[in-house]
Amino acid sequence: MASDDIFPGYFDWAATTPGDQTILQNALQQTCTSFANPSSVHKEGLQAKVLLSSARKRCAAALGVKENNLIFTSGGTESDHWPIVSLLQRPALRNSQSRGNIVISAIEHPAIREMAESMKNCGFNVISVLPEKDGRIDAEKLLEKVDDETLLVCVMAVNNETGCIQPVYQIADGLKAKFAGKKKPKFHVDAVQTIGKVPFFPAYPGIDSAAFSGHKLRGPRGIGLLYLSQRQEPFMRGGEQESSLRPGTENLFGALAIAECLERYALTPKNAQSALACAQTDDPNVILQNVANQNAARRYCQQIEYTFDFLENLKKLKGTALIPQVRGETEKYSTIRMFSPWIVQASFENIPGEVMVRALSEKGFSISTGSACSSRKLSRPILEAMGVKKDQSANAVRFSFGCETRNEDMKNLLAAIAEIRSMF
Amino acid sequence: MASDDIFPGYFDWAATTPGDQTILQNALQQTCTSFANPSSVHKEGLQAKVLLSSARKRCAAALGVKENNLIFTSGGTESDHWPIVSLLQRPALRNSQSRGNIVISAIEHPAIREMAESMKNCGFNVISVLPEKDGRIDAEKLLEKVDDETLLVCVMAVNNETGCIQPVYQIADGLKAKFAGKKKPKFHVDAVQTIGKVPFFPAYPGIDSAAFSGHKLRGPRGIGLLYLSQRQEPFMRGGEQESSLRPGTENLFGALAIAECLERYALTPKNAQSALACAQTDDPNVILQNVANQNAARRYCQQIEYTFDFLENLKKLKGTALIPQVRGETEKYSTIRMFSPWIVQASFENIPGEVMVRALSEKGFSISTGSACSSRKLSRPILEAMGVKKDQSANAVRFSFGCETRNEDMKNLLAAIAEIRSMF
Repeated sequence: MASDDIFPGYFDWAATTPGDQTILQNALQQTCTSFANPSSVHKEGLQAKVLLSSARKRCAAALGVKENNLIFTSGGTESDHWPIVSLLQRPALRNSQSRGNIVISAIEHPAIREMAESMKNCGFNVISVLPEKDGRIDAEKLLEKVDDETLLVCVMAVNNETGCIQPVYQIADGLKAKFAGKKKPKFHVDAVQTIGKVPFFPAYPGIDSAAFSGHKLRGPRGIGLLYLSQRQEPFMRGGEQESSLRPGTENLFGALAIAECLERYALTPKNAQSALACAQTDDPNVILQNVANQNAARRYCQQIEYTFDFLENLKKLKGTALIPQVRGETEKYSTIRMFSPWIVQASFENIPGEVMVRALSEKGFSISTGSACSSRKLSRPILEAMGVKKDQSANAVRFSFGCETRNEDMKNLLAAIAEIRSMF
Repeated sequence: MASDDIFPGYFDWAATTPGDQTILQNALQQTCTSFANPSSVHKEGLQAKVLLSSARKRCAAALGVKENNLIFTSGGTESDHWPIVSLLQRPALRNSQSRGNIVISAIEHPAIREMAESMKNCGFNVISVLPEKDGRIDAEKLLEKVDDETLLVCVMAVNNETGCIQPVYQIADGLKAKFAGKKKPKFHVDAVQTIGKVPFFPAYPGIDSAAFSGHKLRGPRGIGLLYLSQRQEPFMRGGEQESSLRPGTENLFGALAIAECLERYALTPKNAQSALACAQTDDPNVILQNVANQNAARRYCQQIEYTFDFLENLKKLKGTALIPQVRGETEKYSTIRMFSPWIVQASFENIPGEVMVRALSEKGFSISTGSACSSRKLSRPILEAMGVKKDQSANAVRFSFGCETRNEDMKNLLAAIAEIRSMF
């Protein structure tokens, strides 16, 4: 591993990952050579189109989907917006009736939560479903809120602040069962925190769309993927790129880079059965058996060990609580089912989150309070929705890890936390 | 000039420009070093934020606007969508009345034309204004269509297929006069084909927003700019990036690259008076006096000479017509007021556009029929709107030039066209 690829003090991988320099430079070089617009019909355009098409094929293979199910977008936010905004394709409201309901979890990323809120201006109702105390959405309770007025259901695969894994396959199954023989609401999964980190199978039956982001996977910013199980009509229109589903000149650099990142890091179950096996197991061997990319699977299993040690030591510090509380009480391997090993949320009594972030930053460690996307807000809506008390959520911070995080880095972080903890 | 920067057969610069390798590589290197999320509050985040802020300052200086008037977007299409889609912020329709009118020119890029069409689903009316035979929108006729029901007017600065310069300052003045003392409709200018090519001043009074694209200026794809004269409420919501006006993790690589491209290539008038002087002149010296970037201004004046020679020779070929026709009849320098010297649309009797594109491609020359964004459509809506007859528009192609195009390249292109012409 080149020294460039070591980031010993960086523990904010959930916010963004350091780009893989070799992948980025290769992609840029290819793009400078094949510089034409992939939609141009001359030789240079066709050359660029071939590259774009090969990038899409590679992404599809790494995610276990068909290439015509993938659209390149500008990132996770645009991929999350797409299925919500496409509801505006429906006929304009000509009476006082609602245009339909959007059911979301209360712990969605702002790209879903705030966008759904905005849709209220256009006559849609938004129904927000609270998580349980363990940070997990109860699939049955969510399904109760879904009815014939529901057009779209959005539940993320892994929460970006707590790492809680959500029961998206169970929701997909439940929606299919509930709407057997009827028109089913669309089901969108924000999978941004799964990519290369936690097994996730977008082509699971009943999932209609899923969002992925390049920069969460050592790729560049400005590129994302939207999985669509079948064609949906877009609301945002312009040029005919991406099968007329996403206008704008194609970002070939981003497409080539995300393709290579996915090949290297994606942790995709082999099929729907493998996906369920991974989601239900407490045994790391089941992950190894059911995921195609063995390097990524081994790294994931390794992180389960690292993070369990980290949690064991963290919870021994006085006045320190894991969030949700149940995370401090789980068996070693139950994290496989319940939590992403790459994200830890913890609260330090009498140490406001901002103070901990600053104190660690001064010692050379980068962490965050919650989502970087909401870093300027002091409120913590996700923790609030989980019923975390205000004083505890004010003292909460997020540690997040990545493929280049070493066990020794995590031990150094722990020592620094202990030192700061002892000063309060 | 490095040999890398010569593109002797490439005449499709209006579709996309070859990236400036030095600029792109520098930007990538900076981003790999400052890899953190600019919205993160730790040291690495702040370092990235400083870079992002400096990129915005540099873009603002090059465009003659204030830095808080600029939002980074994913490209020209998103920048064009933003002001249209933000109309959805208005209260939902609760009766059968229209939610208001959008007035656009019939020759807008699909990012405007198709997006406006999509807005009909949400209760908005779209009024499309035809151009004159010379390809230019008549400002007075357009203003007649604007009334108290009008929320937004969209007219591009330079047409992407014909190079016709549109009277955007006159429309801005007209809207201000017509709505003196009343709430004025917003005026959006698609300036994608001006950037680094034709003088354009986004901060001209009465222009409320303008769209720019990085890849039209030797920058990367996946980055654009939206100029907003004052804050407008966004419809697309998510994270709080870009002053909560454009969610999504900031594309620092794109921002740094577009900043350097703008510094090198932008052709921005010094102020509103200079903008008018440039728009009304037949004298290249007036451009040189009124534009800050003298290198860019000199290159522009040089292109006027190259293109005039090209047009003179092109129109001598039998069965060859310039589109619009008036372009073959203009004095040498009237192109300064009327046409971008970087775009030429011409029609070759009995040679379908696709045939000319393919024949030139076989000889090593890359041109296009119309917009790459609509390359798969055989219809030519912009030419149709101008009243160009169907058989002529079927035989029309676009030649477009860029800063690295040499006069000898254009002469070689002309020789190839003449050879193909003689075969029919």
